[in-house]
Amino acid sequence: MAEGAGVRRAGMAPSHEATPPWRGVIERYREFLPVGEETPVITLLEGNTPLLPARRLAEKLGCDNPIWLKLEGLNPTGSFKDRGMTVAVSKAVEAGSQAVICASTGNTAASAAAYAARAGLEAVVVIPKGKTALGKLTQAMIHGARVLQVEGSFDDALRIVKDLSARHPMTLVNSLNPFRLEGQKTAAFEICEALGDQAPDLHFIPVGNAGNITAYWKGYREFHSCGRSTSLPKMRGFQAEGAAPIVRGKVVEEPETVASAIRIGNPASWQEAVMAAEESGGFIDMVSDEEIIAAYSLLAASEGTFGEPASAASVAGLAKDVRLGRLPKGATVVCTITGHGLKDPDTGLRAAAKPASLPAHLEAIEQHLGLRGSSGG
Amino acid sequence: MAEGAGVRRAGMAPSHEATPPWRGVIERYREFLPVGEETPVITLLEGNTPLLPARRLAEKLGCDNPIWLKLEGLNPTGSFKDRGMTVAVSKAVEAGSQAVICASTGNTAASAAAYAARAGLEAVVVIPKGKTALGKLTQAMIHGARVLQVEGSFDDALRIVKDLSARHPMTLVNSLNPFRLEGQKTAAFEICEALGDQAPDLHFIPVGNAGNITAYWKGYREFHSCGRSTSLPKMRGFQAEGAAPIVRGKVVEEPETVASAIRIGNPASWQEAVMAAEESGGFIDMVSDEEIIAAYSLLAASEGTFGEPASAASVAGLAKDVRLGRLPKGATVVCTITGHGLKDPDTGLRAAAKPASLPAHLEAIEQHLGLRGSSGG
Repeated sequence: MAEGAGVRRAGMAPSHEATPPWRGVIERYREFLPVGEETPVITLLEGNTPLLPARRLAEKLGCDNPIWLKLEGLNPTGSFKDRGMTVAVSKAVEAGSQAVICASTGNTAASAAAYAARAGLEAVVVIPKGKTALGKLTQAMIHGARVLQVEGSFDDALRIVKDLSARHPMTLVNSLNPFRLEGQKTAAFEICEALGDQAPDLHFIPVGNAGNITAYWKGYREFHSCGRSTSLPKMRGFQAEGAAPIVRGKVVEEPETVASAIRIGNPASWQEAVMAAEESGGFIDMVSDEEIIAAYSLLAASEGTFGEPASAASVAGLAKDVRLGRLPKGATVVCTITGHGLKDPDTGLRAAAKPASLPAHLEAIEQHLGLRGSSGG
Repeated sequence: MAEGAGVRRAGMAPSHEATPPWRGVIERYREFLPVGEETPVITLLEGNTPLLPARRLAEKLGCDNPIWLKLEGLNPTGSFKDRGMTVAVSKAVEAGSQAVICASTGNTAASAAAYAARAGLEAVVVIPKGKTALGKLTQAMIHGARVLQVEGSFDDALRIVKDLSARHPMTLVNSLNPFRLEGQKTAAFEICEALGDQAPDLHFIPVGNAGNITAYWKGYREFHSCGRSTSLPKMRGFQAEGAAPIVRGKVVEEPETVASAIRIGNPASWQEAVMAAEESGGFIDMVSDEEIIAAYSLLAASEGTFGEPASAASVAGLAKDVRLGRLPKGATVVCTITGHGLKDPDTGLRAAAKPASLPAHLEAIEQHLGLRGSSGG
């Protein structure tokens, strides 16, 4: 078992190059980010997520394209939000802020609370009372955020956090914070590097608040324009049918979808997302909740990858494009899996087959599994 | 923003070395693993997890030792089990097995089901009926495992999976499967590499079934004996007081602890774990549930790291050693955080402070947060 090291000690090349430890997205891509030497780097070592080839998924979808899954759920708090939050919180500390503040019930609040904890800042999360199961806030709360439920709407909560950040040394880390998109674009850099300094032909991505498609396109363009990748992808974004303001061309007052992370009726980065789709030669379309859940289950059952429901919008979009004959033959595809399925265990439990109940006898089990009993021989 | 690339195009060293994409623990550490060229590699790109420096935690614990957290919850299914499962399932496919089978309600079942899905194998999970909340099995079920509840005890379930694997081309992936520890030892390799080809002075780790402490010690020894690291750590393992058979020197018939992943009364790797502690000059001790939950909350609130409760046994052990004056000054410390906190959201919710309810007025919020109102200026 010691051959590899023996070779190394003999002065020859080791079988694997020594890899310097990963230091997070700011240190890795510093020259592309709005940080200086004096910026304190607050990192949980986010980024560096796997790009998983998905041959069985391609087969199940009935295409033979090379498909990769960018597993963003393996970031520290379980979603891609960590890439942006490391930049936003580092800049908040640099600016002398004493707290970060947001109106969110989901992945943003979880990430903000974790990075604030890491930095020794306070985190304050303001939400409308009675609109959210507390379970969605478990991460924010365990990371020590002060969660305030106000008797009002989500708009009231957002107004309050904006007012607080204007009056006090508290940094707003909702999507209005421009540093977040800067950090999020690093996922595109990693993909280009993993594919050999080139972009995929097509990038499929869920679209909710529309910041992520905007950030990826920015990242792909920056890497390309400075020669670190040789190509640009076409961006194909997918909204949920019940929360598809961009596709429908108007604000959705009461957005509804099982994919809670993209349940947005009036995206903050609406125009930027439209531009990303147009500039790249892609488009933004929508998929139904049924298609999302089907893709969610297929992904888990065919590739061992458990994404949160919103994540599956990218795979549902890919399935739709295969079905409609609009997936070019041979085109390389990356789908972003935005968050871990453990973020939303209830949907997982509802989507899964229920266990069978059987007597504790081998023969009964064999029969149930369709195995030929071998007790006779 | 293009300076880095400009330098690169001019033929000078880029500001960051190109890192080859991570290909999972088998490809990375092939020469240390029982695989051959003909072994089909079933991987979800597990491993390569962050080693996070934890200065604020050290400060809170009242020591100034260099402390690192090995974040194993960032593996694909959210726990360290993936390192062993990639080897176990790859070997199962090599052997022509058609299914993997286990009696587990937790991280092992989740990981087995995910890797089986990735391989296109069936996964069968046999559990005693009525002993487990189905929520614990969400991952196994969404990955398509056939979950069978039998009317019997856990021992009945284990007997059935053993019998099935003896009679049919089904591979047992419970801890009896020796390939799992082989894969798990790769975490020690990664730690040595991240620390500059040396082990930490002390390694703190939760002890349940005792396979992980055994695997780490094996990994540290192998890397050391072939010259890939220059030192060996002392292993300090920690059981939960209500499930501490090794510390008490006798089987615990009804183990009980909030740390469900180490709720084991008769560890499979008992003797090996004792040997790891003795050979390394370390020990195995125990911590109370109160200490575990305190460490769990401290970790989340001071470092933005949300581990499952069992994970916190390592940090609780470190806190105990600081308190008892048995942490050598200056010794470098690694604590394994075995699984992600999202695995057990209920404990997180119980441990966290409850949200406050307030009117949606800025002044009320400011008062609650102890901010000086600035409406006058």
